[in-house]
Amino acid sequence: MAGPGQDLENPLGVGAGALHEWIFATRTGREMIGQPGGSEDIDDDLFKQGFDGIGATVMGRNMFGPVRGPWGESDWRGWWGDDPPFHHPVFVLTHHPHPPISMAGGTTFHFVTDGIDAALALAVDAAQGADIRLGGGASTIRQFLRAGLIDSMHIAVAPVLLGGGERLFGDEPIAYECERMIASERVTHYLFGRSS
Amino acid sequence: MAGPGQDLENPLGVGAGALHEWIFATRTGREMIGQPGGSEDIDDDLFKQGFDGIGATVMGRNMFGPVRGPWGESDWRGWWGDDPPFHHPVFVLTHHPHPPISMAGGTTFHFVTDGIDAALALAVDAAQGADIRLGGGASTIRQFLRAGLIDSMHIAVAPVLLGGGERLFGDEPIAYECERMIASERVTHYLFGRSS
Repeated sequence: MAGPGQDLENPLGVGAGALHEWIFATRTGREMIGQPGGSEDIDDDLFKQGFDGIGATVMGRNMFGPVRGPWGESDWRGWWGDDPPFHHPVFVLTHHPHPPISMAGGTTFHFVTDGIDAALALAVDAAQGADIRLGGGASTIRQFLRAGLIDSMHIAVAPVLLGGGERLFGDEPIAYECERMIASERVTHYLFGRSS
Repeated sequence: MAGPGQDLENPLGVGAGALHEWIFATRTGREMIGQPGGSEDIDDDLFKQGFDGIGATVMGRNMFGPVRGPWGESDWRGWWGDDPPFHHPVFVLTHHPHPPISMAGGTTFHFVTDGIDAALALAVDAAQGADIRLGGGASTIRQFLRAGLIDSMHIAVAPVLLGGGERLFGDEPIAYECERMIASERVTHYLFGRSS
């Protein structure tokens, strides 16, 4: 999920840019950062599919930004510029209250201070029957896994060894089966659903 | 590398059979256990390639067998039956001396009590210019990684989540790059070499 030595300059740790190179090689990933071109292949299909039918996103605070502790005078508005790629309500888990932030394109960041169940309830309500996407990071995903709240996972494994950093999985007992595994030139995708 | 709850009945932990199913679906893997049939595909090619040009193998004691502590009266001769698939000298790392065991087909198990450098020196000598294969398990591989003694790695990732067990990597600083990544229906292969 991240390499060693995470700080403001290396928000995902040293070397971890390689984890997401495949995204910025796709047409959808490049559109997200206002760039033309990009591949229209399995990587693009699966990255795009991650946004299909999603009505709300839940993410951890470190996924939203590098600010730690109380928000203070911070005017941080997320990693994604003025028009974030969500276009729906995003619920950010934090211990510190923060007023909602409305962005262009229909994205509003809401800050939830009372845990994952509260965040999920708000997201379900906001999504009006559409799916909820869990944006990360690792500790947020592990909290939802432990609570048995995840139906399906798309895990993209980039062929890079970082030598440390943050892992996706701890020792959560989990019951998922792989429904699809497919490798492009850049990354291998594993799609997991609950074991039947 | 292994699932949770390793014991005599589940030497690789609960559920970990799924890690090696791809091997026993290949022609070479089935031959190894005296069975006909099996696929002749990329999985078979890469599994077979792991034996090509190898003159000696080094492995940890737990890879050799389930006996722990002093060997005592144990007549354990490895997991592989009367004709193990090595056909060359195998050096087993252990803290407890044991006389060599000669098997059919040219495999001899030697027991080395003075660490990985000694085992590697003996293996290099025995291999007479051929390559040395590191058989595992995880803790042996990590010792060799930390000592900078591994030139190339074939990592096979089966699409299964075990929810615990033994990991291949700790936080060793490592400098390898992926030279090839390819997925079959059953497993994804990652071939790593030292970074240039």
